[in-house]
Amino acid sequence: MWGGRFAEGPSAIMREINASIPFDKVLWAQDIAASKAHVAMLAACDIVSEADAEAIIGGLERIAEEYETQGVPEDWDLEDIHMTVEARLADLIGPVAGRLHTARSRNDQVATDFRLWVRAAMDEAVAGLEGLQRALVTRAGEHSGSIMPGFTHLQTAQPVTLGHHLMAYVEMAARDVSRFRDARERLNRCPLGSAALAGTGFPIDREMTAQALGFAGPTANSLDSVSDRDFALDYLAAAAQCALHLSRLAEEFVIWASQPFGFVRMPDALSTGSSIMPQKKNPDAAELVRGHAGRIIGCQTALTVTMKGLPLAYSKDMQDDKPPVFEAAGLLRLCIAAITGMVEGATFQTGRMRAAAELGYATATDLADWLVREADIPFREAHHITGAAVRLAEGRGAALGELSLADLQAIDARIDERVFAALSVESSVAARASHGGTAPAEVEKRVHEARGRLEMDA
Amino acid sequence: MWGGRFAEGPSAIMREINASIPFDKVLWAQDIAASKAHVAMLAACDIVSEADAEAIIGGLERIAEEYETQGVPEDWDLEDIHMTVEARLADLIGPVAGRLHTARSRNDQVATDFRLWVRAAMDEAVAGLEGLQRALVTRAGEHSGSIMPGFTHLQTAQPVTLGHHLMAYVEMAARDVSRFRDARERLNRCPLGSAALAGTGFPIDREMTAQALGFAGPTANSLDSVSDRDFALDYLAAAAQCALHLSRLAEEFVIWASQPFGFVRMPDALSTGSSIMPQKKNPDAAELVRGHAGRIIGCQTALTVTMKGLPLAYSKDMQDDKPPVFEAAGLLRLCIAAITGMVEGATFQTGRMRAAAELGYATATDLADWLVREADIPFREAHHITGAAVRLAEGRGAALGELSLADLQAIDARIDERVFAALSVESSVAARASHGGTAPAEVEKRVHEARGRLEMDA
Amino acid sequence: MWGGRFAEGPSAIMREINASIPFDKVLWAQDIAASKAHVAMLAACDIVSEADAEAIIGGLERIAEEYETQGVPEDWDLEDIHMTVEARLADLIGPVAGRLHTARSRNDQVATDFRLWVRAAMDEAVAGLEGLQRALVTRAGEHSGSIMPGFTHLQTAQPVTLGHHLMAYVEMAARDVSRFRDARERLNRCPLGSAALAGTGFPIDREMTAQALGFAGPTANSLDSVSDRDFALDYLAAAAQCALHLSRLAEEFVIWASQPFGFVRMPDALSTGSSIMPQKKNPDAAELVRGHAGRIIGCQTALTVTMKGLPLAYSKDMQDDKPPVFEAAGLLRLCIAAITGMVEGATFQTGRMRAAAELGYATATDLADWLVREADIPFREAHHITGAAVRLAEGRGAALGELSLADLQAIDARIDERVFAALSVESSVAARASHGGTAPAEVEKRVHEARGRLEMDA
Amino acid sequence: MWGGRFAEGPSAIMREINASIPFDKVLWAQDIAASKAHVAMLAACDIVSEADAEAIIGGLERIAEEYETQGVPEDWDLEDIHMTVEARLADLIGPVAGRLHTARSRNDQVATDFRLWVRAAMDEAVAGLEGLQRALVTRAGEHSGSIMPGFTHLQTAQPVTLGHHLMAYVEMAARDVSRFRDARERLNRCPLGSAALAGTGFPIDREMTAQALGFAGPTANSLDSVSDRDFALDYLAAAAQCALHLSRLAEEFVIWASQPFGFVRMPDALSTGSSIMPQKKNPDAAELVRGHAGRIIGCQTALTVTMKGLPLAYSKDMQDDKPPVFEAAGLLRLCIAAITGMVEGATFQTGRMRAAAELGYATATDLADWLVREADIPFREAHHITGAAVRLAEGRGAALGELSLADLQAIDARIDERVFAALSVESSVAARASHGGTAPAEVEKRVHEARGRLEMDA
Repeated sequence: MWGGRFAEGPSAIMREINASIPFDKVLWAQDIAASKAHVAMLAACDIVSEADAEAIIGGLERIAEEYETQGVPEDWDLEDIHMTVEARLADLIGPVAGRLHTARSRNDQVATDFRLWVRAAMDEAVAGLEGLQRALVTRAGEHSGSIMPGFTHLQTAQPVTLGHHLMAYVEMAARDVSRFRDARERLNRCPLGSAALAGTGFPIDREMTAQALGFAGPTANSLDSVSDRDFALDYLAAAAQCALHLSRLAEEFVIWASQPFGFVRMPDALSTGSSIMPQKKNPDAAELVRGHAGRIIGCQTALTVTMKGLPLAYSKDMQDDKPPVFEAAGLLRLCIAAITGMVEGATFQTGRMRAAAELGYATATDLADWLVREADIPFREAHHITGAAVRLAEGRGAALGELSLADLQAIDARIDERVFAALSVESSVAARASHGGTAPAEVEKRVHEARGRLEMDA
Repeated sequence: MWGGRFAEGPSAIMREINASIPFDKVLWAQDIAASKAHVAMLAACDIVSEADAEAIIGGLERIAEEYETQGVPEDWDLEDIHMTVEARLADLIGPVAGRLHTARSRNDQVATDFRLWVRAAMDEAVAGLEGLQRALVTRAGEHSGSIMPGFTHLQTAQPVTLGHHLMAYVEMAARDVSRFRDARERLNRCPLGSAALAGTGFPIDREMTAQALGFAGPTANSLDSVSDRDFALDYLAAAAQCALHLSRLAEEFVIWASQPFGFVRMPDALSTGSSIMPQKKNPDAAELVRGHAGRIIGCQTALTVTMKGLPLAYSKDMQDDKPPVFEAAGLLRLCIAAITGMVEGATFQTGRMRAAAELGYATATDLADWLVREADIPFREAHHITGAAVRLAEGRGAALGELSLADLQAIDARIDERVFAALSVESSVAARASHGGTAPAEVEKRVHEARGRLEMDA
Repeated sequence: MWGGRFAEGPSAIMREINASIPFDKVLWAQDIAASKAHVAMLAACDIVSEADAEAIIGGLERIAEEYETQGVPEDWDLEDIHMTVEARLADLIGPVAGRLHTARSRNDQVATDFRLWVRAAMDEAVAGLEGLQRALVTRAGEHSGSIMPGFTHLQTAQPVTLGHHLMAYVEMAARDVSRFRDARERLNRCPLGSAALAGTGFPIDREMTAQALGFAGPTANSLDSVSDRDFALDYLAAAAQCALHLSRLAEEFVIWASQPFGFVRMPDALSTGSSIMPQKKNPDAAELVRGHAGRIIGCQTALTVTMKGLPLAYSKDMQDDKPPVFEAAGLLRLCIAAITGMVEGATFQTGRMRAAAELGYATATDLADWLVREADIPFREAHHITGAAVRLAEGRGAALGELSLADLQAIDARIDERVFAALSVESSVAARASHGGTAPAEVEKRVHEARGRLEMDA
Repeated sequence: MWGGRFAEGPSAIMREINASIPFDKVLWAQDIAASKAHVAMLAACDIVSEADAEAIIGGLERIAEEYETQGVPEDWDLEDIHMTVEARLADLIGPVAGRLHTARSRNDQVATDFRLWVRAAMDEAVAGLEGLQRALVTRAGEHSGSIMPGFTHLQTAQPVTLGHHLMAYVEMAARDVSRFRDARERLNRCPLGSAALAGTGFPIDREMTAQALGFAGPTANSLDSVSDRDFALDYLAAAAQCALHLSRLAEEFVIWASQPFGFVRMPDALSTGSSIMPQKKNPDAAELVRGHAGRIIGCQTALTVTMKGLPLAYSKDMQDDKPPVFEAAGLLRLCIAAITGMVEGATFQTGRMRAAAELGYATATDLADWLVREADIPFREAHHITGAAVRLAEGRGAALGELSLADLQAIDARIDERVFAALSVESSVAARASHGGTAPAEVEKRVHEARGRLEMDA
């Protein structure tokens, strides 16, 4: 296929290292769609005859049926999906197949196919993340008033509600969606017609192919078109950040499911047992989400490194663009689905959560705030007084609210009995009604807004 | 400052590992701006008195002057920029300083400061990239008709124009700008008022502080607000992709400046010599841009890894968010400036470029295209015929255009004398007038558009 | 310093991007040591006179004193530590200073300096890791019989001893030491005398300089010598793996210090409090170790990426080799010291650990093993029987050992009363006396061996 | 297989995310070998009967034959290779199969299998690297006197020989071998018998299984044994550094094969053509080696990130250890083979190399050195004089050797006619006879040594 200028065929090692068909065969539907759009345009521009175009389109459709039902054959000598399709087309319709490759090159062809695939992966991620958000919002609505300890440094900090905690992940997922959408918009220009690197002398209509393939328009520079893989890097960056978010929730599920925490029972359907320890129920799905995040980050590194320092235009290194993207997309799909399943199926042990919130002097800040508010003490001083109260309570093995008024007044005389109302976990969470705060009423507002945004009440 | 609950002070190693003031002191201006906005709001909401607020604001302004002129003192015992400022405030205005920390925590404070800093870094990157685009467009305009070899696989592929080549980088830089802008929009919500993690019981007005600091509004979930570093990761992802693009141009400058290529002379002002080889003029700035890209990618990896698997809300690991961002921003600033200087100052050796374009059978595709167009031969067959012509020419050490008509007709009888017009590098580039192609007229159109977009003709 | 071939000096941006003195000044002692060795050799080989050599050595020693007491001046125009030292030498002793640069270049000079620095960093890491091992072994000896739950998937799996757990980290640290030692041996060849890239025509004695600087001998190929940074990558790989190990122990400390676990109280000296929540004691040092691991991995990525695809010999990208190594070494030193302090100072709550080990059916495997051993049931079947027993106990909210014999025999008649002896946590750990198992006697053996290896009983 | 404690089976997503059989089936031979060693030991220790052991070994051998000829079946419900083998064993020999899992767990089983696999991959890499070294040494021997320009900053620096250049890669490959060997030694302890995490109560003989599987002995701590993946990270670190080295040679081949350089013709067997440009011969294999280096680095990042911060002992995240290692090993095998093929098959264009060495004032250093040696001028001053000579020659478009004696003496009167002998490229390379220098005689010495070390003259 290289014009017979080679005295010698490829060596065995070359056939193996060079062939991309083992992985790029997943692009078959995109390749055929792009070829159909291309030849329809060639006909419309009188570059090939209508009859030839019809023969080619007919042949391509027959190939699509074959691949759909029988899979794509892997012949290393045909190198890639483009030559595999074209060779099969020649089998089916003869030499007229050769007209398909007019005014294009594999360089713009693969750039087009790959964009179409990545665009679909972005859309799939967005759909998955919307499903995850719905699951989170539903559970958050159930638990807008369920009190749990809020942690910083994994130390009990202040009481929060489980609903508020779950809604934090809705925020993350919403940013992930916006990142995929931004990336999609940046991706959505069509490189087809850039040919090998310089454009073409045939009077083609790039707007027409762009439109046929759902792009907003053609790309503006042919050299850039065949050497750009920003869209793949954008996808990987969005996937990596999304995986980071999922890894945080996964980490929490693993910790919460431990016996000492006991905040959650993971669904049987997403757990496994042990081949040796019969009592075990392991949160494997959560751990795998966390592990997969590592691999998705590795995929991002791989393509980033590969693209560094490549001169224009196409270099063969860029064939290494696809395995990391395909791998990351497969892993991300599993991660989103598994986390969604865990959110939907988790049995939250709200009793244990609430009990844990009572421990650890979680309402100490409320005492300090009370001192500021009611006794007009500067916060720094209030903080110090409260520290003394905590120290006293800890020495006695008591909760803050179990100290007597006399105890508290011995520390600071400005304290009066109204303070006890501030020291329950209920009043603590109810008080935090600032915008975005953990108060149940505030959480319910956010849940309501999210349900609207996610069209959950239709 | 921790309320006196500690029996023992920090060890020497703790003071060293814990102190962030050596690097977070660069946030001083942001910290003071956020504190001023916060206390103004506290006063407007009657949480502190007007008099106290004025005293605090006056003190903060005095601190800003001190730091501006004398730098920020580094006292490890004060840990970070927040405590450094607050301690100085107490020195200056006494205990009323303690009212500043009402209804906030260091967790939301650092999230706010850091966002402000990163937002400015995004704006700086956009400004730098616009300057780079102007430099590229100017040089592209000068060289819209300068012919050079277009490469794929670093092999001579087809003739292109230098202007076209430079405009490819304008496309990349424009995508970089759009990436920074998307990231800025996603960043631009204010976390201030989220307090430690749960919001606050004080009747604050988060819209007011958000507006005062130039944010589009407050964030929606307090747990997310203090544990989110997406904006920093978004910045690093955009910086890494930008650095990749710059590394590609840097690689080209290094190759082009080599003696065998000789396509460019780098400006003296961005080159160095050798301590041992007196004849050397080295493209150091280009190499450093390429090297810095590696480090920026390392910064991205660092923060990505750090954030993986962290449970909510704030964990101290997140203190390691700043060094990679500060380092990357410093390196990116240098890279953009250096590349801009190289683009502006490079002396392109257009004679050598054109001569190189004549070699390597760069117009072989034009012969194939001619056969398709004029003799209605399917492209695949035309490609094969051309391969034979190249082989013949190569055997004779001749250019394609130096073969006789008889030679060509011996290969395929359908060739006639009109073919020779297609085989010059001028006609080759002129022919590629498809949208985004390398034809000088097409390049000039793109230059014109870009000049408009970049407001270069005002 | 480049022989006056430049019409124009460097631009401001070039001065900034090109100068390495801000970071490579830490190499001053290595640079002076290497220069002294070099000039002593030049004199021994009659390439410079004894008098000139003495003058140069005297000058270098005076510079060393200056830098020791006053620090290294940062003059960007002198670019790097090599030119900084040489310029100062010329100030001090006049033109004879110019003889020092005979038969060398900055390329072999920096390769030598940097190797010396990295070698010292490897030695420092080994010393730190030996201190950490001693701390671990000491605490393991104290707790060879302290029972805690062993976890897999963070689920209670089988009882283990705290001593056994701590000794796992001794194994990791020992592998880290071996990795640094292997790297040191591979590093320990001297590149000095390779000159710019091709060796030198002066009759130098490379064995002599190698020996003077503590190397095993000179390197074998001058091109490789100036373009090799394997030693730095080896250091970073060893540092990254070491940091991974430390991050695992740090994660455990964070989890163990949480209120629901309560397995450990971290030393006050390595904890911090909160600016808003007076009750907090946060395991900051552990979190920072975990966070620093992320940054060290970023440093490894940075240099790996930078070195990829660089043609021989020296390229200026390689100036970006030092910041990641210097940063990683500083972070690793802190991490080892902080973890050592935590191991030494942690107060293990052995009562809570033991109580947790009683929960979660941790001895279920012992029941299965008993069935295999005493009733000759294939393990798979025993595993199934035990599963039924756990299910029964769980349904009743009882421990396995609280089931009656009748209960157990109803599940499988082959069970007899001897089984109860197997179900205590003490008998469970005592039974696991296989080589490397958790039985206290076995742990004591390992502790004893380690004390000998680490020379702790001298 | 989990003891029937689960009310509900895994969901579809769980079956997919949890199953490792799609990738860990490549461990089948290791799994069977380890099981045979384990059961033989159980019999020797009277834990299972001889008859049962024989039945199990017979069954395992039959399975090995099946997998050898028919491949390993992929049943997601059996999760992994261990359960796949064990389930098949039960099919073949009945319930006695259940005795195989006595005194072991999947945790120590997979650690053993994977170590065996990685050990073989290390051995394969060493063998491949020895082949590459032989190819390099052979070509270096042919070209010990072939002169080419030595580059720094890709600028012509000093003449070197091609043999010297190729021998630089022998040094790199030798370090790679030493890295794989160090890693192999560190890996070579057997974890089998560590069971789930705590060791076992059965009286097993871990020395016996270790020896049977070619390990130096058993591991020392059961918790570490099941949670350690250092051996995989060591492999990836060695693979990444090796890939970096190969990427540098690949980069050189790509540059050298470009038309402006023309230093090499790549073998047809490792090149490809273009689907659109009939004249192209692309160095695809070299580019793919460079690209694969990016992916191998990504694999290293993936596992590094995954392991960070995992508490002991086994977590399911660690199932994500295998895909990056398997991928990296496959890529590395291809890279080593492809580079070896390129080294063996490259046609070096020595004429063009030599001509390039004549350009660029490559012998300017020789003039400076001559001034030092013959006129006793300090190097710094000699460097300056030479700079003036280069400037004069460049202004005239002449080589240094083409200046007249009068020209040179006008620059510095101490120059005499002997200088011209120093200015040829032959005398330049011949002069650099320092240890490791580029002089042909020195290169031949190194080639001779390497041939001995690599047993090439047997």
